[in-house]
Amino acid sequence: MAFFCNFTLTQTTSNSMINQYIHDNKDRFINELLDMLRIPSVSADKKFKADVLRTAEFVQARLAEAGADKVELVETAGNPVVYGEKIIDPSLPTVLVYGHYDVQPADPYELWNSPPFEPVIKDGNIYARGACDDKGQMYMHVKAFETMVKTNTLACNVKFMIEGEEEIGSVNLATFVRENKNRLQGDVILISDTGMLGNDTPSITTGLRGMSYVEVEVTGPNRDLHSGLYGGAVANPINILCQMIASMHDENNHITIPGFYDNVQELTQEERAEMARAPFNLEKYKKAIGLSDVHGEEGYVTMERNSIRPTLDVNGIWGGYTGEGAKTVIASKAYAKISMRLVPNQSSEEITEKFKKHFESIAPKSVTVEVKPHHGGEPVVTPTDSAAYQAASKAYEETFGVKPVPVRSGGSIPIVAMFKSELGLDSVLMGFGLDTDAIHSPNEHFGVFNYMKGIETIPLFYKHFADMK
Amino acid sequence: MAFFCNFTLTQTTSNSMINQYIHDNKDRFINELLDMLRIPSVSADKKFKADVLRTAEFVQARLAEAGADKVELVETAGNPVVYGEKIIDPSLPTVLVYGHYDVQPADPYELWNSPPFEPVIKDGNIYARGACDDKGQMYMHVKAFETMVKTNTLACNVKFMIEGEEEIGSVNLATFVRENKNRLQGDVILISDTGMLGNDTPSITTGLRGMSYVEVEVTGPNRDLHSGLYGGAVANPINILCQMIASMHDENNHITIPGFYDNVQELTQEERAEMARAPFNLEKYKKAIGLSDVHGEEGYVTMERNSIRPTLDVNGIWGGYTGEGAKTVIASKAYAKISMRLVPNQSSEEITEKFKKHFESIAPKSVTVEVKPHHGGEPVVTPTDSAAYQAASKAYEETFGVKPVPVRSGGSIPIVAMFKSELGLDSVLMGFGLDTDAIHSPNEHFGVFNYMKGIETIPLFYKHFADMK
Repeated sequence: MAFFCNFTLTQTTSNSMINQYIHDNKDRFINELLDMLRIPSVSADKKFKADVLRTAEFVQARLAEAGADKVELVETAGNPVVYGEKIIDPSLPTVLVYGHYDVQPADPYELWNSPPFEPVIKDGNIYARGACDDKGQMYMHVKAFETMVKTNTLACNVKFMIEGEEEIGSVNLATFVRENKNRLQGDVILISDTGMLGNDTPSITTGLRGMSYVEVEVTGPNRDLHSGLYGGAVANPINILCQMIASMHDENNHITIPGFYDNVQELTQEERAEMARAPFNLEKYKKAIGLSDVHGEEGYVTMERNSIRPTLDVNGIWGGYTGEGAKTVIASKAYAKISMRLVPNQSSEEITEKFKKHFESIAPKSVTVEVKPHHGGEPVVTPTDSAAYQAASKAYEETFGVKPVPVRSGGSIPIVAMFKSELGLDSVLMGFGLDTDAIHSPNEHFGVFNYMKGIETIPLFYKHFADMK
Repeated sequence: MAFFCNFTLTQTTSNSMINQYIHDNKDRFINELLDMLRIPSVSADKKFKADVLRTAEFVQARLAEAGADKVELVETAGNPVVYGEKIIDPSLPTVLVYGHYDVQPADPYELWNSPPFEPVIKDGNIYARGACDDKGQMYMHVKAFETMVKTNTLACNVKFMIEGEEEIGSVNLATFVRENKNRLQGDVILISDTGMLGNDTPSITTGLRGMSYVEVEVTGPNRDLHSGLYGGAVANPINILCQMIASMHDENNHITIPGFYDNVQELTQEERAEMARAPFNLEKYKKAIGLSDVHGEEGYVTMERNSIRPTLDVNGIWGGYTGEGAKTVIASKAYAKISMRLVPNQSSEEITEKFKKHFESIAPKSVTVEVKPHHGGEPVVTPTDSAAYQAASKAYEETFGVKPVPVRSGGSIPIVAMFKSELGLDSVLMGFGLDTDAIHSPNEHFGVFNYMKGIETIPLFYKHFADMK
């Protein structure tokens, strides 16, 4: 009983100290994020290489200022990983924080209301590429850590692992993890790179889709041809590519690649009923993205189609004349970037192989095709009965006043599965973004409310996780 | 008898005078063409507007130097038409020469072995955008005219009408013709904007395909979306566009637009047998453009597919992320440029309307589509029993030593049909280019042999046409 009082007392004091510190430093916390958002760390495009490195150095400096030890940029075959740690007591649990400082390309630039790398705050939102994904959400952890250190309330050991290649498939992270197994030992991986259902409906992501991403090239004639002189007599690679892509979905929007669904984990009616309890308004959903109708696999509802079902989407297509006016040409080549989202228990490598085999098999003799695998990742489902999940749930409940809902997301964070296999650690996905944040789109933004809520909620997770271990 | 001797004498003398003059001025004739090829007169792209005008002025100046009267740039709503004439005797027949000084866009630039607007002569060919289509072939007429004037052998009145918008559908030429009916009166229209079967197999084009050119836009969500969070639940406009395009050909490569073939003129077995007599080697054809197999409409051979049958080809397609690396996005919009080649007796306007109606009708409710007509043109068949055709045939026979073969081309010169309807004049299509000249492609070229042969053959056409009228 005494212990209980004492505990609540400590808790109250520490909570109020934490909240006071956050309140006193709010403007600086925001301005530091804006500074980072000004650096265009687009990992997919080599011409931003120097900016990617500047961003890594920015994170490194802020981590050190926040109180981390052994802060360094660990070289990889690609962009460096920012590492830093604070070991206060080896007997305490250790939280391994993962995030990424690279961002998606910002094009099409013309659709942004303000330049993607000149952040502005409007109507309570920070607008910039990376505002939410993942600079904003990653930086909440740096500032929450600073808060715990400065208020002397850090309840766990912490290790930070902030990478710069998430948007290009974390191509070198598995190697980094393998080569640093000892220094990465811990009890849980904490990640904020997902979203919540809403500010009044906090949620924790308990499942993620995997991915297989390929680029295809279809070659017809060995040079561009005059569509008048040759039209009708030779294979037009664009028409052929369209036919090949079209054939990959049947009339029910099932994917036709042989064996594609072989290992797909079908949910039970109970599980689907449980999912259906999450608040969802189809009309609002359509209105938010300007759709007159949704579109997807027969036999599944929208929230299932974008989370527990695999997909095949063309992310980019190009070929022939795309300039102003009209050019009557038959292109020599046509290209597409195609990604498939995977669900348990599909294997990225296996699906990529099946795609390649199928794509080559359906190509008519009149063209040649090439399939280049880009990157992949495995799907995951994280446990909801773990101490980490319970601690996170409790933390959200305290800051939002509502118990968070567990949801399966359609997104992919391939490294979650890799962490499990390489380090034997589960991840807890404490996302504070919203679906409406337009990540990967023009006008990406992140609510100041969400950013600050994250900084408030994270210290509570540390406290509860320490208490429960 | 006396007349006959006298005639042959005159002919021989004039022929030798003409050949002497051409021989003496060959280098200058070539250099003047190279000068014109250095001006990038791309009509499809506004940024070349000034160069287009410079090219018009270049042609105007050369025509005047060659001896034309009343040379002027006639303004239109678009690029000016270069007009010039030489009326030597109202009782003589009048030849109306048509050509165009604008060229196709040169991209993709990286596939050119030498810059498209820095002409080079290699292995007897002039390499440059427009070398053949149509600057080279148009300029043959200017130099042939100069030759006839300077050697005092001009046998007909001449009128030149050289436009600057052929590659964008001659959008303002019909208006020009209507507004200049009087000054454009004549007996025949002479055009060199087509090809020959080979240097040892001269041919005259007696048929051309028409065209309907449209640009389509498919819109799904109102902004680009994250393919993880939305993939599978919303219509991906690129996938949908591919499905719509794919559905426009059936398994026999027949076009599925309702009513598309309604007015197509079917050739008789006799006509098809006659066509089949033109020299054609399928293996050579495939080898020349690097195809392992041809591809086209069931029931027709290659030479029919690219001349007497209508087509539907995607000339350009774009949407989503087309940059380096991978971006997991569902694009808001996808686009395609689509051209349909038409044959007698299809109507461009009617086909465009049918396409629009069909395209809109097959769009799923989950997307919105827009169809923008670009430009069109009507198919034509020109008579082979006319004095003009016979005069052209005789001219080729004298310079090539072989009687030319009449062929139907798959290309389109929409204005041929317009000239017939507006001026009541037939055209004779004296082409000197080859299918291998790569017009509309990188490394377009024109044989010096062909250029000079054209300059030699054209004066003979004038002579025979005058004799036959």
